[in-house]
Amino acid sequence: MLYLIGLGLGDAKDITVKGLEIVKNADRVYLEAYTSILTVGKEALEQFYGRSIVIADRDLLEQGAQEILFEADCKDVVLLVVGDPFGATTHTDLVLRAKELNIPFRIIHNASILNAVGCCGLQLYNFGETVSIPYWTDCWQPDSFYERIIGNRVRGLHTLCLLDIKVKEPTLESLTKKVKEYMPPRFMSVSEAADQLLKITINVKNSENNGKALPEECLCVGVARVGSDSQKIIACSLKQMKDTDLGPPLHSLIICGKLHPLEIEYLSQFALNEQDVQNSVEV
Amino acid sequence: MLYLIGLGLGDAKDITVKGLEIVKNADRVYLEAYTSILTVGKEALEQFYGRSIVIADRDLLEQGAQEILFEADCKDVVLLVVGDPFGATTHTDLVLRAKELNIPFRIIHNASILNAVGCCGLQLYNFGETVSIPYWTDCWQPDSFYERIIGNRVRGLHTLCLLDIKVKEPTLESLTKKVKEYMPPRFMSVSEAADQLLKITINVKNSENNGKALPEECLCVGVARVGSDSQKIIACSLKQMKDTDLGPPLHSLIICGKLHPLEIEYLSQFALNEQDVQNSVEV
Repeated sequence: MLYLIGLGLGDAKDITVKGLEIVKNADRVYLEAYTSILTVGKEALEQFYGRSIVIADRDLLEQGAQEILFEADCKDVVLLVVGDPFGATTHTDLVLRAKELNIPFRIIHNASILNAVGCCGLQLYNFGETVSIPYWTDCWQPDSFYERIIGNRVRGLHTLCLLDIKVKEPTLESLTKKVKEYMPPRFMSVSEAADQLLKITINVKNSENNGKALPEECLCVGVARVGSDSQKIIACSLKQMKDTDLGPPLHSLIICGKLHPLEIEYLSQFALNEQDVQNSVEV
Repeated sequence: MLYLIGLGLGDAKDITVKGLEIVKNADRVYLEAYTSILTVGKEALEQFYGRSIVIADRDLLEQGAQEILFEADCKDVVLLVVGDPFGATTHTDLVLRAKELNIPFRIIHNASILNAVGCCGLQLYNFGETVSIPYWTDCWQPDSFYERIIGNRVRGLHTLCLLDIKVKEPTLESLTKKVKEYMPPRFMSVSEAADQLLKITINVKNSENNGKALPEECLCVGVARVGSDSQKIIACSLKQMKDTDLGPPLHSLIICGKLHPLEIEYLSQFALNEQDVQNSVEV
């Protein structure tokens, strides 16, 4: 049996009781470690589970998945996934491969940022589609997520922006070499995300679609390490978010739509300047 | 300390290890039992936790919450919530009341239908805003959710429809009496939801907004008891969904937007008629 087990968002103890029982009895356990991270590392998980874990990087998961699925028809193989197993396309793909090989599978769900973001007080049914903000390079600066944020705002909806993670990315120079070299891991901060959004705003204002820009003053919420003891939440304008440091990863950014009075009341506790949140209805 | 602890979606073992530790050591434990349900009852939870639980109904939660917050500044009080604690407005409100009284609080997240719905293979970032479909009465037949489904579809997005739950609803006759009488609990099925949507479609077609109706043939996904061993998923047209029985609650309904090839491949395993899913791109 192939088990995809969600780990939740904080530390080792955020696994469910059901998930933990399966991990303890499994033949092999892998940890998917490139689409998200916990606040604790592999060693802390190994200590808590009392067993060893193999890190499953992008190469292992995307190129064949043969190792993971090996003998999974007669052995119990676990893939641990930070958050909920269906947060990333890769895992859907793995389950499809298992099905092709007649390997039974089971999913153990857990919290993901998509529902845990409710901790900032914004109501989940007031969110539109989720977007991802990728790191820009000198020659690749996509901005299609910007239009979707605007589309949500026009309808009064908040947008959850998932921020880019670069783990075990080969350096450009080593791509053609036999032995790959990897860049140090990078996790986009709310400050970097706000900076990128503000740059797009300048481009949009200089183009002919002037009306569809995100106001510099629009209310945003930055969340960091949601679900952990060191969780941090800040509500401020997009412009202020550019200069806000929420500490270690992971970060996510919310661009607010229309706010309900209960949302304003709850958000106020995280406001850099309470008046900004109170006034935000008008921006 | 006030703890809001998510129970996830299936049975007693879907609580997190962190959540279980807190429950075992708490002074008082309440179970919120009117916005959602697990596949097991209070007794199964009590047996698993080895302690007694008090059911917190709507009256207890909304009218004061004084009992729950009583002495929570010096005792550990837990409110267990099916899914994730921030799924319902009521819980945000309870936390605000705790803050007013200087009672510290902590949230233990878990899976909710908003992320676990990914189990049907539809990608979570392709969902637009979530809607709720309420039970109609003879004199109250709201349909504003319909427009929002259409709005999502126009943008190519799927819509998760949360279906109404009526637990401990006083009968109309007893509303003015001292002793309230309650109706038997009701949980909207995907069949009832599809029936209601089809009725609105007829109304829309008879009005002047003809173009904005949901096609009877549009692809839907019905999910029941997500995360439990008896989970059931069916993909079929809206018209067929009306005649589909997914068994006991809880049910949710997804109205599909534009499908990605990987989504089609995954959904096919749940298709009533595989050709419908393959063709659905064109509807």
